[in-house]
Amino acid sequence: MYEGLKGFRDVYPAEMAAYRAVIDTVEDTARSYGFREISTPALERTEMYVDKSGEEIVEELYAFEDKGGRDVSLTPELTPTVARMVVAKQQELSKPIKWFSTRPFWRYEQVQQGRFREFYQTNVDIFGSAEPEADAEVLSFAADMLTNFGLSGDEFEFRVSHRDILGGLLREFDADVDTTNAIRAVDKRAKVQENEYLDLLYDAGLTYDQAREFDDLLLAGDDDLDALTEWSESEQVHDAVTNLQDVLAAADDFGVREFCDVSLTTARGLDYYTGVVFECFDSTGEVSRAVFGGGRYDDLIESFGGQPTPAVGVAPGVMNSTLPLLLQRAGVWPEEAVSTDYYVLSVGDTRPVAARVARDLRERGHVVETDVSSRSFGAQLGYADSINAETVVVVGEHDLENDEVTVKDMESGDETTAPVDEFPGEHDRPTYGTFAE
Amino acid sequence: MYEGLKGFRDVYPAEMAAYRAVIDTVEDTARSYGFREISTPALERTEMYVDKSGEEIVEELYAFEDKGGRDVSLTPELTPTVARMVVAKQQELSKPIKWFSTRPFWRYEQVQQGRFREFYQTNVDIFGSAEPEADAEVLSFAADMLTNFGLSGDEFEFRVSHRDILGGLLREFDADVDTTNAIRAVDKRAKVQENEYLDLLYDAGLTYDQAREFDDLLLAGDDDLDALTEWSESEQVHDAVTNLQDVLAAADDFGVREFCDVSLTTARGLDYYTGVVFECFDSTGEVSRAVFGGGRYDDLIESFGGQPTPAVGVAPGVMNSTLPLLLQRAGVWPEEAVSTDYYVLSVGDTRPVAARVARDLRERGHVVETDVSSRSFGAQLGYADSINAETVVVVGEHDLENDEVTVKDMESGDETTAPVDEFPGEHDRPTYGTFAE
Repeated sequence: MYEGLKGFRDVYPAEMAAYRAVIDTVEDTARSYGFREISTPALERTEMYVDKSGEEIVEELYAFEDKGGRDVSLTPELTPTVARMVVAKQQELSKPIKWFSTRPFWRYEQVQQGRFREFYQTNVDIFGSAEPEADAEVLSFAADMLTNFGLSGDEFEFRVSHRDILGGLLREFDADVDTTNAIRAVDKRAKVQENEYLDLLYDAGLTYDQAREFDDLLLAGDDDLDALTEWSESEQVHDAVTNLQDVLAAADDFGVREFCDVSLTTARGLDYYTGVVFECFDSTGEVSRAVFGGGRYDDLIESFGGQPTPAVGVAPGVMNSTLPLLLQRAGVWPEEAVSTDYYVLSVGDTRPVAARVARDLRERGHVVETDVSSRSFGAQLGYADSINAETVVVVGEHDLENDEVTVKDMESGDETTAPVDEFPGEHDRPTYGTFAE
Repeated sequence: MYEGLKGFRDVYPAEMAAYRAVIDTVEDTARSYGFREISTPALERTEMYVDKSGEEIVEELYAFEDKGGRDVSLTPELTPTVARMVVAKQQELSKPIKWFSTRPFWRYEQVQQGRFREFYQTNVDIFGSAEPEADAEVLSFAADMLTNFGLSGDEFEFRVSHRDILGGLLREFDADVDTTNAIRAVDKRAKVQENEYLDLLYDAGLTYDQAREFDDLLLAGDDDLDALTEWSESEQVHDAVTNLQDVLAAADDFGVREFCDVSLTTARGLDYYTGVVFECFDSTGEVSRAVFGGGRYDDLIESFGGQPTPAVGVAPGVMNSTLPLLLQRAGVWPEEAVSTDYYVLSVGDTRPVAARVARDLRERGHVVETDVSSRSFGAQLGYADSINAETVVVVGEHDLENDEVTVKDMESGDETTAPVDEFPGEHDRPTYGTFAE
């Protein structure tokens, strides 16, 4: 007997029915905004990740040498791949480019609740607009997706920040500060002790006093962004505050401002972000990690050799990830059960008629099973129950002599007969009720 | 600038729209038969493939050692994985087990027309029934899928064979023949010269005279299966012929016999098949390779440590594969274009109203884009055209003073005005025609 790999999941039909409902909701919402589906490779050249993130990233990758001697990796995220694709067709693609896709990604990480080595994300990105409406549309998509699941504003919040506010303030404290590492420190703020957080900022080049003042400023900014512009003389900070306010104003026009809280200590872990960034959190705090996040990455396409192309996106994890934890906590997780419209039960020498009934029902778009195991009446009825069949159509020799079939409602157990020619005949979805007196 | 890997494809939105239509047709057909979706890992332990197929299979695999020292491979096909999953839950799963999934697979192969190193298949399998109805249901699913694309019986044929007819006949010629290698030779028959084919049968243990007689028998059997039972004294051959006839009789009751031709020289490449096997071919011969194939593999689950569990399945390749070649040849390939229901064009200070109109249209299930780039009227109209918008709703300051919007049909260029409150208001899908005199 073989075993699957640690951190990789086999998903059986009942659970998959729930995941499929989740993925459909996320993708339908993306489509409604005009995001267009793309398909992307599972393998890329490892250098694409190393060039951006350094050799240490390889430790988190499923990286290997292929049979042609190429250093390749299973894709740990989509953003570098879509950046490569935008650069490859930058002359032909009309802007804004709006793409989505749902697919697995792989990271060699510690397995924990809601975190697996193989996980599915739906990536949603806009390329070619630096305007606040683009950031707001991404927030709007994310909010619609969650409300389409049945969540309200009491259940989740988007913590919105801006990389240039963080970067600008840091440089105002010390022009030589290592902003990349300082921003990584901010990203770790909620996950480590205060001392450790201050140590990380110190390592990035701030004094301890500066670190504390920087942190106080961020918290003051959460309540009132004007507190930052009063304190700061940096043009970068002033521009970033204006941009963040513009994005929130657009979000207001788009009807999703209510879900957004300014939270400048929200930094996002990845280095390539440049402007507005945000993370979605469970408002009750029961799901302690960020549910998903996104933001602006205006420099990535150019760093990949393309023309300067602003970009903003979000990537909810839809399977083997954190989003399901939020949906479960909020009581809107879809039912984990398969559903079946009809089971056509054949007893005796009635296979051609049963097959005709099944075919006609399938043509009307229904989920229909028939016997493929030559089983008894009772065994077939038990199986029909196990697949949650709504209606069982019994095609028996005796009934057929009267040109009838028996129609059984599996919820109530009620049954009646129907003319075989009327099953389905003109009926789009005949059930017990269609024929009962 | 980074490049993608050879044999791996980036699929952009217009082409993906066609592939999505293809995948939807295949999956909707599978669902209509009560096949249930599952999700499976991209990586498995390499030994699972080596144990079945020998060390030489590793040459065709993306195999490597992971960071935990495990020998792992990107899955080259689904069947071993689903066999593993059936064994893992064999007590809980009610039979028949009917599963499907669409996902990528990877093989390190020579790249050629319609063959890539990463390709997508929809695997459709039934576990737990040895009855001919199960084989016939798989054939029936495959035929429905193709006719749902708009193909007729003139466009494709299923070449149906039986592994036990081949194996039984071979053993009748020589009890010590290597049936695995002889059946592999039959699978290569159409791809190699006659001499080479006879050499392969000779290498498997037949004399050249036996090889020729064996081949003549297969061809005679195609026209009349009774020719085999007259010649053969093997119980295995007689049983297999009866089973093949039973499957074809069930296919007849299921309405798909017309698509099936007996073709005993169709053997399928994989070793694990045991009973009926089949391959789909382009009837015109323009697509020279098999479009897809399937068959019965009754011994695999037991060889994986499970209880004896008969199984039968089929796996059409839906992307980066041969099926698209058939659909293109037959002229039923879906249009490669994105589609958009509405573009809501905002000019002047009208963003809140434009956003409200867009939101209401999205809630009605439509694909709706709005401006995210602060562009001019003309630039927005050009973009709306580039995304094939059907209707453009112009939300302009002047119109809004009269509580109106302008509704433009992008096909004809006709436009009219509509009350802003009626867009969409009570209308489910308002267009130019809704408001034109």
